[in-house]
Amino acid sequence: MEAYLDNAATTRVMDPVKEIVVRAMTEDYGNPSSKHKKGMDAEHYIKEARAIIARTLRVQDKEIVFTSGGTESNNMALIGGAFANQRAGKHIISTRIEHASVYQPLAFLESQGFEVTYLTVDSDGHIFLEELKQAIRPDTILVSVMYVNNEIGAVEPIGEIGRLIKEIDPGILFHVDGIQAYGKYEIRPKREGIDLLSVSGHKIHGPKGTGYLYINEKAKIRPLIYGGGQQKDMRSGTENVPGVAGLGAAAQEMYRDLSGHIEQMVRLKDHLIDRMGEIERAVVNSKKGLEGAPHIVSVSFQGVRSEVLLHALEERKIYVSSGSACSSNHPAISGTLKAVGIKREFLDSTLRFSLGMYNTQKELDYAIQVLKELLPMLRRYGGGPGGKRR
Amino acid sequence: MEAYLDNAATTRVMDPVKEIVVRAMTEDYGNPSSKHKKGMDAEHYIKEARAIIARTLRVQDKEIVFTSGGTESNNMALIGGAFANQRAGKHIISTRIEHASVYQPLAFLESQGFEVTYLTVDSDGHIFLEELKQAIRPDTILVSVMYVNNEIGAVEPIGEIGRLIKEIDPGILFHVDGIQAYGKYEIRPKREGIDLLSVSGHKIHGPKGTGYLYINEKAKIRPLIYGGGQQKDMRSGTENVPGVAGLGAAAQEMYRDLSGHIEQMVRLKDHLIDRMGEIERAVVNSKKGLEGAPHIVSVSFQGVRSEVLLHALEERKIYVSSGSACSSNHPAISGTLKAVGIKREFLDSTLRFSLGMYNTQKELDYAIQVLKELLPMLRRYGGGPGGKRR
Repeated sequence: MEAYLDNAATTRVMDPVKEIVVRAMTEDYGNPSSKHKKGMDAEHYIKEARAIIARTLRVQDKEIVFTSGGTESNNMALIGGAFANQRAGKHIISTRIEHASVYQPLAFLESQGFEVTYLTVDSDGHIFLEELKQAIRPDTILVSVMYVNNEIGAVEPIGEIGRLIKEIDPGILFHVDGIQAYGKYEIRPKREGIDLLSVSGHKIHGPKGTGYLYINEKAKIRPLIYGGGQQKDMRSGTENVPGVAGLGAAAQEMYRDLSGHIEQMVRLKDHLIDRMGEIERAVVNSKKGLEGAPHIVSVSFQGVRSEVLLHALEERKIYVSSGSACSSNHPAISGTLKAVGIKREFLDSTLRFSLGMYNTQKELDYAIQVLKELLPMLRRYGGGPGGKRR
Repeated sequence: MEAYLDNAATTRVMDPVKEIVVRAMTEDYGNPSSKHKKGMDAEHYIKEARAIIARTLRVQDKEIVFTSGGTESNNMALIGGAFANQRAGKHIISTRIEHASVYQPLAFLESQGFEVTYLTVDSDGHIFLEELKQAIRPDTILVSVMYVNNEIGAVEPIGEIGRLIKEIDPGILFHVDGIQAYGKYEIRPKREGIDLLSVSGHKIHGPKGTGYLYINEKAKIRPLIYGGGQQKDMRSGTENVPGVAGLGAAAQEMYRDLSGHIEQMVRLKDHLIDRMGEIERAVVNSKKGLEGAPHIVSVSFQGVRSEVLLHALEERKIYVSSGSACSSNHPAISGTLKAVGIKREFLDSTLRFSLGMYNTQKELDYAIQVLKELLPMLRRYGGGPGGKRR
């Protein structure tokens, strides 16, 4: 049996996505900027995908700008938002549990003279609204908070945050990294005060190299990439027609029956969390039910190094993540786990199990069974902190 | 019969590309940053594509950075190159015939305090080496010249330009927009003094949304997109594994038998140019044989507006471009045609026919036959400059 439980890192492309990608690569392969029929056929794919996505958010089609992925979307929102509004001030607010694709652009902005306040979180990973309120200053131009944390699945109170910001100063841009949330939540930017929302295609069984940024029509941001003026000059470059079409198809599929979909994922997640209770010295860092994201289960296994356990599971065809895959090239201890105050001894002993559309309860039971087999052995022989690295 | 003669705008994806894209989307769909086998399998696709591409240029694998396309590559080279080297000066040199994905980032840099000198070209579209030499100053940090012009197929003397620059000041970065040249020329950055080379996938029968930037290991540039640290921190974001693999497959195919490939294209091109001679008041703006790019034929049709002719051809399933497709959203008169001094009356009467791997002589003969049928009629009824716009 195989169990791919790393869906927060990336997902398998679903069939309707594959089909439309292939069609746009081999049949309707025109350049949307070409004035002839082949160009217009290609443009139609873009329009269609844009309309599908806008409907899932209840926003206008023209407020969706396609990008090469979540990282570009976050960069565009933060760097583009900061530079376009710097006359109003150079202060930005974010949190200590953001993904690298948020905190690295913020670090760049700091090097360019911007000042960033990083909000703390409680042990569940939630920011304190009072702290946010205190942090807002007359020169604050941008607040960036993730919807769902990629490591533990904490869900921030985005609607409340949006209302609080807009009450104090409607001119402040509110950016939300929705990369782990889109496809799992009904996100309503207009109601929740979100001006900029970043989304990635490959987290929702869409193609890699795709994503979008929702930009409130009233928000002012600067492009990151200049050129032929595609997408109303906001993001130049020939549109990735197959990718965009695939992203649209994935969005459509995810939102076709969202509540049924969420129900199924939460049931699986709760089953996994319940059964983790059978494992000795395993501490679950994620919440059951709707209190946490429906697809992320973070578990600390006392007395075993996460990397050792990850590779032992891999040999049994169980694929999980230590920390977040997106920053695995920097094997630093996770910022999120530290920020939520996880015990020091657990920092390097934590794995993330993340679910997708194709997972089954059988796979989860298989993972639990294998964990039960492996852990006593690994804890005995060199798998513990300071043990021999394989 | 159908004749897709707009291959400089974009191309149909070839079969081996489609196959590897599908495999990477549905079977080997891991995230290259994941530490388990599925991640390593995905990383292997990236490594393989990088090695293939590095071999086609005779450069090191680590000098290839994958991007979302030619436009991003150009932006990264110019904006990243300028900001990383601004301590040495803020002067840049380019030409009057660059693509929008070069001149728009340059316009952005001008707004940021950089100064750009735009070199003139002769009636064949070639820059004057002497003018370049005179333009280089002690504060010049970057020179950007396209390899092949996208509108008329002019080929710049890149090797000579590179040697000239490096003789005067080896510290000046030499960027080459190779988007219309890669797959058609043996490009040797090390020999030609190229520090930065931009390439797009979808111009060579690879996937849209893919491209790369060759960066000489000694060149210093700043990233455009920050995040998880992928690609040695030069371009963050989960790699577009299917896209990158497809780009590698396309590069491999294009360079498998480059000279045979060029020979075939030049033969077709020369045939088209020869047969244009049969058409009254048609002036070919491109060169036969190896004096011009093997795939681009620009033709001015006196007395007929290009857009009218384009749509009339479209109805006969012949797909061509007026100006360059990439800037069709900005229906300004072409910068290149003006720069090469094309007669005023021809500026709005010029079409581009561009060839790809799948074109045949029959298609070209069909296009000539249709042109012969259409032109007398269009010239008589309202197709001329000032005529009724359809």
